[in-house]
Amino acid sequence: MAATRSPIGAPVPRLEGSAKVTGRALYTADVALPGTLWGKILRSPHPHARIVRIDAAAAWQVPGVRAVVTGQDVPGHFVGKTMRDMPVLCWERVRFVGDRVAAVAAETVDAAEAALDAIAVEYEPLPAVFDPLAAMQPEAPLLHDDLTRYDGAPRQWLATDVHNGVTRLAWRKGDVDLGFRTADLVLEHTFRVPARHEGYLEPHACLVAIDDDGRIQVWAACKAPFRARVQLARAIGVPEERIRVHAVQVGGDFGGKGDAVDVPIAYFLARQAGRPVKLVLSSAEDLATSNPSHPTIITIRSGVTRDGRLVARAARTVHASGAYAALKPNAALSTWHYVGGAYRVPHAAFEFLQVATNTVPGGYFRAPGAHQFTFALECHTDLLAQALGLDPAELRLRNLLEEGEEDAVGNRLRGIKAREVLQAALEASGPRPAAPGRHQGRGIAVFGRQIGGGAGGAVLTAERDGTLTVLSPTIDQGCGTHTIVQQLVAAEMELPLERVRVVVGDTDTAPYDEGPRASRVTYTEGQAVLAACRELRARLTEHAAELLYCREAEVTYRDGTFHGGERQASLAEVAARAGRGRPLTVTTALDAPHVEDVSYYCAQVADVEVDPETGQVRVQRLVTAHDVGTIINPVTHQGQIDGGAATGLGLALSEELLMEDGRITNAHLGEYKLPTVADMPPLETVLVQSPGGTGPHEAKAIGEFSNNTPPAAIANAVADAVGVRLFELPLTAERVYQALKARAAATDAPGEP
Amino acid sequence: MAATRSPIGAPVPRLEGSAKVTGRALYTADVALPGTLWGKILRSPHPHARIVRIDAAAAWQVPGVRAVVTGQDVPGHFVGKTMRDMPVLCWERVRFVGDRVAAVAAETVDAAEAALDAIAVEYEPLPAVFDPLAAMQPEAPLLHDDLTRYDGAPRQWLATDVHNGVTRLAWRKGDVDLGFRTADLVLEHTFRVPARHEGYLEPHACLVAIDDDGRIQVWAACKAPFRARVQLARAIGVPEERIRVHAVQVGGDFGGKGDAVDVPIAYFLARQAGRPVKLVLSSAEDLATSNPSHPTIITIRSGVTRDGRLVARAARTVHASGAYAALKPNAALSTWHYVGGAYRVPHAAFEFLQVATNTVPGGYFRAPGAHQFTFALECHTDLLAQALGLDPAELRLRNLLEEGEEDAVGNRLRGIKAREVLQAALEASGPRPAAPGRHQGRGIAVFGRQIGGGAGGAVLTAERDGTLTVLSPTIDQGCGTHTIVQQLVAAEMELPLERVRVVVGDTDTAPYDEGPRASRVTYTEGQAVLAACRELRARLTEHAAELLYCREAEVTYRDGTFHGGERQASLAEVAARAGRGRPLTVTTALDAPHVEDVSYYCAQVADVEVDPETGQVRVQRLVTAHDVGTIINPVTHQGQIDGGAATGLGLALSEELLMEDGRITNAHLGEYKLPTVADMPPLETVLVQSPGGTGPHEAKAIGEFSNNTPPAAIANAVADAVGVRLFELPLTAERVYQALKARAAATDAPGEP
Repeated sequence: MAATRSPIGAPVPRLEGSAKVTGRALYTADVALPGTLWGKILRSPHPHARIVRIDAAAAWQVPGVRAVVTGQDVPGHFVGKTMRDMPVLCWERVRFVGDRVAAVAAETVDAAEAALDAIAVEYEPLPAVFDPLAAMQPEAPLLHDDLTRYDGAPRQWLATDVHNGVTRLAWRKGDVDLGFRTADLVLEHTFRVPARHEGYLEPHACLVAIDDDGRIQVWAACKAPFRARVQLARAIGVPEERIRVHAVQVGGDFGGKGDAVDVPIAYFLARQAGRPVKLVLSSAEDLATSNPSHPTIITIRSGVTRDGRLVARAARTVHASGAYAALKPNAALSTWHYVGGAYRVPHAAFEFLQVATNTVPGGYFRAPGAHQFTFALECHTDLLAQALGLDPAELRLRNLLEEGEEDAVGNRLRGIKAREVLQAALEASGPRPAAPGRHQGRGIAVFGRQIGGGAGGAVLTAERDGTLTVLSPTIDQGCGTHTIVQQLVAAEMELPLERVRVVVGDTDTAPYDEGPRASRVTYTEGQAVLAACRELRARLTEHAAELLYCREAEVTYRDGTFHGGERQASLAEVAARAGRGRPLTVTTALDAPHVEDVSYYCAQVADVEVDPETGQVRVQRLVTAHDVGTIINPVTHQGQIDGGAATGLGLALSEELLMEDGRITNAHLGEYKLPTVADMPPLETVLVQSPGGTGPHEAKAIGEFSNNTPPAAIANAVADAVGVRLFELPLTAERVYQALKARAAATDAPGEP
Repeated sequence: MAATRSPIGAPVPRLEGSAKVTGRALYTADVALPGTLWGKILRSPHPHARIVRIDAAAAWQVPGVRAVVTGQDVPGHFVGKTMRDMPVLCWERVRFVGDRVAAVAAETVDAAEAALDAIAVEYEPLPAVFDPLAAMQPEAPLLHDDLTRYDGAPRQWLATDVHNGVTRLAWRKGDVDLGFRTADLVLEHTFRVPARHEGYLEPHACLVAIDDDGRIQVWAACKAPFRARVQLARAIGVPEERIRVHAVQVGGDFGGKGDAVDVPIAYFLARQAGRPVKLVLSSAEDLATSNPSHPTIITIRSGVTRDGRLVARAARTVHASGAYAALKPNAALSTWHYVGGAYRVPHAAFEFLQVATNTVPGGYFRAPGAHQFTFALECHTDLLAQALGLDPAELRLRNLLEEGEEDAVGNRLRGIKAREVLQAALEASGPRPAAPGRHQGRGIAVFGRQIGGGAGGAVLTAERDGTLTVLSPTIDQGCGTHTIVQQLVAAEMELPLERVRVVVGDTDTAPYDEGPRASRVTYTEGQAVLAACRELRARLTEHAAELLYCREAEVTYRDGTFHGGERQASLAEVAARAGRGRPLTVTTALDAPHVEDVSYYCAQVADVEVDPETGQVRVQRLVTAHDVGTIINPVTHQGQIDGGAATGLGLALSEELLMEDGRITNAHLGEYKLPTVADMPPLETVLVQSPGGTGPHEAKAIGEFSNNTPPAAIANAVADAVGVRLFELPLTAERVYQALKARAAATDAPGEP
């Protein structure tokens, strides 16, 4: 029998791909239960106000209304990932435009909307603050009296010494003052990045039905059913076990779909109505009131020697936390994965502050905090090079970490490929663009990060026909996880792909899992399924020995067949025997450690052309070089890189949640300018392959890299092309035009009449 | 701590009850998937015909049509429980009015119906036969050329020696000819019972969606997902493992919902359309073309001595099998559970023939075959008593089995309570009704049966909060199974009921199960959950020993707490430790043996009044005495007895599928007269309790008893009241009136002018 060709590295199409593109996939809004009511949420029109009175009596007069719940009916309930500071429904105070005040459920959407209109809320407006720096001033209105009183408040990180301070993550290394004193040149710059929406196309949605025994059935646009379960349990005060969160497709995530945000509201409505309640946000509502990335101000100061060696760096990053910390991991951001950058810095001090503001609460965003900080760090690096008269690449190469060196915050890293990816990106990019008479430029940026660990699990069944079924708790939110799982199991069990099926389990049927996040899924869920394969093989080998009349040690397994002595038995035969005519099932659950001494890297080179008349930036080419290990599936792998590049391009050039007095004014996704196909430059990828990946088969993570470098690479290219430096994203034509005009004014001023 | 009061015997309300009565339960027709099409089936208008030509081209012209499949497109596919003789869609021949010929799927029901109308089928009618006795004549048209060629044909039972014979079940004991020669009196009677619908209110329905990897997702009005899976797999020729049958509520079963009948059709439509397809039969369609009980003719002959001892009995039962044997267990009926009756018979011969007829295929019916045979046997017993001048009860008491005696077919039974239940029923009934001038009478009947065994399983999880979750593969089709499971687990684990939840698994998430049937569920699924409890306790005890710093042998468990030495630990603490912070899960799968030497019994006494002017029979009182063991739940237990009595009352008095030339003419359930509340007499139950039940806690089965005795008890009471004996069911007013008129004519004839 010919050996099965290993499916590792094969371009297997995504398992769920065609169901999604043909509309057959089941999303939360598609789930229909008998008697389901439509829920709608009444939101605060004020960025900050005291609720004087809520009169919902008139809502009951609207025909078809079956539930009306105000914050004053269910006071004291908070929701949140870790720190539970966000009221499920506000009862005495609202803190942002969009804060939830009441909710209704009715037979039709129209009736629900009419009922919302009928609810009278009397507000006493309070002074509001939107800018995080302003919020830190003593005279600014205080949003929260005492953060320590919130459940899950991360005491070790609370920034109680700062007015409106929420959390502080800080790292120090060496003696930063001494460092700066030894520098030949010290430069400081400040960068600003606005809020961004994750750009998922499915708005937040949930459906809650309560069984007669009190069991709570939940369907939600959430990539992490187990996390949604614990969040709901804590918000409404029931044990997790009373809740079942079902698995459905998630229509885009990019960090924005990890929580149970409105599920407690649907629960209260369903409980009151005695009927299932479905809440589907409108696109405008989702855009304005969900969990965007944080508006961020980064001030970064570096000291270098004349020959371009970094000696000291201090950075202070201030994130506008928004009204609540509920939607952030540990109420902070996951900054520790990438705070140090790829550089060797002997003396350093980093501070990341979250400051409460009367704006929409910030959340995850495909490596939360990374695109903001990388924009600042890598633009600042170019400015250092410019001041030293060095090529930007050369400055980087002089400071990039070498094997075994400590990064800026003291992590001693191994397997560092930062230098290799930068050189590969430069090499692939060829000569700099320089068409005569055209304003062209090139910019580079480098980014690296660690990979998350955590819980994963799998239930693996050897069916009687010799196929395998993997019941995985991991929602495939679009990165191709289930396809990877299929390949890993097929390879480990030496079976063709079509003999392995992947099924998604829910919180009642599958082991605990934390959901896809932190670029960790292949690493964590991959280990879980491989552990299940090993256990299954061990169990099957015992039975194969009996079937083959030999000792277990004599049994070998190859390509779906057990061999022992002169005999052989197929997986199907052994499985049938092992299960005594029934399928044989093994269950694994594991916690994969967070690996602190490994970071993976990518480097990008952007070539741009700027129209000096309009300020329009056109990216002509984007080359991404990536530190990669074994590529399990080149299709999904490349999809992650290209998708990231597209996200990064939008972050660089067009995407922005516009705020006026704390109110998001983009009325729909058409006004939130995600890049389209027409905006995309040719994307080129260079894979810098090396062993040592911590994933199965030495795979390395790929999920959250190429989205973080484009803003800096493009901003650096714009500076290279037209000599203006932008300190704020996105690099809209208007901003570039204004910068060009300002520079012209400054240059021309002396000569003007 | 006070000991938990055992929930065994507590009147726990049915877990799913209120969801069902409030409309919140999810039935197959409620399941909505994106893009679902409506399927409709084109059926033969002929009882027997050759298909000359099918022209479906015009169906494609109907706007909204997305799939058109005829039998000639997918020839050679058969469906069936065991013997697969029923074409999924007929391609060359139809054998009953309602046989499936083609099917369509469209965007709307109207479009689907219009498309059916547009399909032209040219038939060449063939001679048809409807009565099974006529079908056995050599000149009758032959329905099947060679039964042995069907997959799954039960070779040991095929009645190939009979024209149109399908199967024969036969038992002989002693020398029946010799027996009759020794008798003082030999009587023979023939009885007829028509087809009955099971009376479930939810028509057959299914929904099939095919994933892009070929996985087939099924929702079906079927109480046995695993059986539906294997039937579909065989019908369409794919491995079972490629199919997932989801668990949904089943809206009544009574034997009629055990199969995948139309699922293969939905599959072919879904495959062609590339969209999910839902098939929901209309009530009329379900009534006319599903799997009713078999029209049956029973001829029974008994020899008795002058003092009323049975010495010989021969019975021949001929069932009109209908066009196919597909929907019967083993292509026969489950007659072996009750063929012998409750009587001692030294010489006996029983034959049960299935004969093919051009009528709707017969199926299960809450103890299939039992109500027909019991009607004949128990009426015949009264006729014997009448001929001997004995009281009917007295004749029975002289012949009822004693402990350890052999029944009529050689089963040596233990724990027989037939005598006790008959005496209890008589005692509870008091003096015979005898109001002056009114035509009142009393009748009795006795029935006993064995209980089925087979596969069951459970996945039991100790959650971290100290609750338990049982994932059961058993659909609760209305008998209260899940409530019983909850009680059994709560009792075994010494926990309050509210700490045990029951969740239904499907074919991907739960162990194999055969579904509720043969009154077996408490016996089989009960054993499975208890085995899971024992395994869980063993696993928890190991960890409790570590936690309590003692040896395992020193650990005791009581009311949710583990004790060891001076220490104690709650179930929640031990579970959290055992699962290392995750829930701890054990899985059991077992095959419970069919117990051949135990039968349970019930006896009924019916008091009736007959209106001699109209023939109307009014049951005034129905007393049921039941051989019971430990009653786990008196509410569900009594529900089974009362529900059975109601079914039996309908079988006795009103229910009948009317056939004209093989066509069922009841147009809707309103014309199929299920008894209403107004028809119900006072029901009285006497529980004759004794140990030795084979179920958990020595429980005895209760599911399929009290529905089988009413026809005989009531017919015997009618004879007692007005002196006419009816040999055919149901005992409609018209039949009784005609019998009274015929008797009057016979009596008056000599005296008339």
